[in-house]
Amino acid sequence: MINLNPLTQPPNQADLLLTHEAIQPFIHRTPLMTSANLDEMAGCKLIFKCENFQKIGAFKMRGAASAALRFTEGERAKGLATHSSGNHAQAVAMAAQTLGVPAYIVMPHDAPKVKIAAVKGYGAEISYCVNTPKDRQEALDEVVLKTGAVFIHPYNDYGVIAGQATAAMELIEDTPGIVLDLILAPVGGGGLMAGTALAARYFSVQAEAWGAEPSNVDDAARSLVQGTVQSNVTNETVADGLRTNLGDKTFAIIHKRVPKILVVSEEEIVTAMRHIWERMKIIIEPSCAVPFAAVLRYPELFAGKNVGIILTGGNVDVVSLPF
Amino acid sequence: MINLNPLTQPPNQADLLLTHEAIQPFIHRTPLMTSANLDEMAGCKLIFKCENFQKIGAFKMRGAASAALRFTEGERAKGLATHSSGNHAQAVAMAAQTLGVPAYIVMPHDAPKVKIAAVKGYGAEISYCVNTPKDRQEALDEVVLKTGAVFIHPYNDYGVIAGQATAAMELIEDTPGIVLDLILAPVGGGGLMAGTALAARYFSVQAEAWGAEPSNVDDAARSLVQGTVQSNVTNETVADGLRTNLGDKTFAIIHKRVPKILVVSEEEIVTAMRHIWERMKIIIEPSCAVPFAAVLRYPELFAGKNVGIILTGGNVDVVSLPF
Repeated sequence: MINLNPLTQPPNQADLLLTHEAIQPFIHRTPLMTSANLDEMAGCKLIFKCENFQKIGAFKMRGAASAALRFTEGERAKGLATHSSGNHAQAVAMAAQTLGVPAYIVMPHDAPKVKIAAVKGYGAEISYCVNTPKDRQEALDEVVLKTGAVFIHPYNDYGVIAGQATAAMELIEDTPGIVLDLILAPVGGGGLMAGTALAARYFSVQAEAWGAEPSNVDDAARSLVQGTVQSNVTNETVADGLRTNLGDKTFAIIHKRVPKILVVSEEEIVTAMRHIWERMKIIIEPSCAVPFAAVLRYPELFAGKNVGIILTGGNVDVVSLPF
Repeated sequence: MINLNPLTQPPNQADLLLTHEAIQPFIHRTPLMTSANLDEMAGCKLIFKCENFQKIGAFKMRGAASAALRFTEGERAKGLATHSSGNHAQAVAMAAQTLGVPAYIVMPHDAPKVKIAAVKGYGAEISYCVNTPKDRQEALDEVVLKTGAVFIHPYNDYGVIAGQATAAMELIEDTPGIVLDLILAPVGGGGLMAGTALAARYFSVQAEAWGAEPSNVDDAARSLVQGTVQSNVTNETVADGLRTNLGDKTFAIIHKRVPKILVVSEEEIVTAMRHIWERMKIIIEPSCAVPFAAVLRYPELFAGKNVGIILTGGNVDVVSLPF
């Protein structure tokens, strides 16, 4: 296992290359897919990076592995800990399993049973808490105090950001014959968005990284306009992976490197998701559909361009779909 | 465009190689996928050939193209015709579009709107009929008489069988490091099953081709036992692509080349389908899940083996799922 140095500032090009090498035992090299149908619908050339086929079913595997490897073996021997009801919980659990150390996950007691089962399936120990930010943090602090495990934040961490950047790095590497104009990612806490922006800056000839966000939780779009981190007033969106707020570390990178964050409605997200299911025959989470929804909503911004889109994950409850 | 000779007997090895070359403008080379999760569940090594990513969303594109190219340009100039409410209708429509000739499709008037729209989307002209075999045939005869179009049978045709064989050919070609023990296909009319058996015989070191079928429509399994073509007593199965009966041409090949056809229950099909959706994050039709359901039902037959499975298609109505 290759160990990585802790990062106290945004990762540079060399950091990202080392990160990608180090996390190989934790990840699949996910395929790219294209669709003549969707290109015609969108009026541009779309290249989808299929992180729905990633281990644990989402790109979060990359960031969790990257962060875990920045602790020394001694530091991580007592385990990895986090609070999450989503893909980050599974990613930390699987990273710990791969490293042969315990995982401690704080989850809201009303988290979907399927998510709880998945986390248990990777051998993690779960602590339940009331579903408020304060209760989660207190429960996590208690777990860390009791076990000596190290905490991996879901997004506001340079190690996590470096890991998430590797999805766009692979997208760029695996399209040698194509000059990408844009790489789109959805924005929740901003880990993927920040990483994608850094990867575009360091490894692409000319691609800009743009974000896409549900208008119901448009904290990132407003933060970009205001120049300071703004909060969401609700977390009601079908794109359950994007309910979180930007952190200071992710915002600083996004503010500097991401020129545009587009917002879309709930209906547009569901329509875009259904198009991808029906035309591409792949299962994606609602969050994944947000960038494609933005392409369909603002066609004049994309006309004739080569557009990479990170499809972030495929963990969706198939018995409870939004269409 | 490469033209092919008509086949008056089962295709030989050279026929299949020529067929594969000729149909290139009509098909994608679909990817193979594997899943550590499903391997563990099954106790064997599974290699999935993803024809759900094929043009028109199903392997039927191969057979329709192969059959269409066996008519002379003069013969097919007046169009291609068939009766089908399923993937074969879309395949013939798209083959005609690619060849620049008209397509005439007879469909039951109560066919799903989404299927009718898809066929229209490929520029075909649709004639509606009452949904009985007799009415379909009469409506088809009338269309052929009126238009001069040539008829492409959905499965009981050596040209179609040669086309369907190319899916297993690619599966074998694309697994150079693996000695396949078995290649599984679902059995409806038997075009894919017959083609798969021929491909295994001609191109694999040792793979046998086995079939899998819903027990509700187990005509093929009973035909194999009886040695003559048996009929289904119902067409009630969730695996809507497998409701048809074997034909004489497909049966003769299957009888000679397929040692085993396994049957599974409706519940087993739905469970297997859901496993593939949830673990592999791909959209497959219920018919596709039948071979994997057989692997789960008869684990002792597959333990430790290398098993290829043809995933036949992904055209499913996502708002009306069986789970």
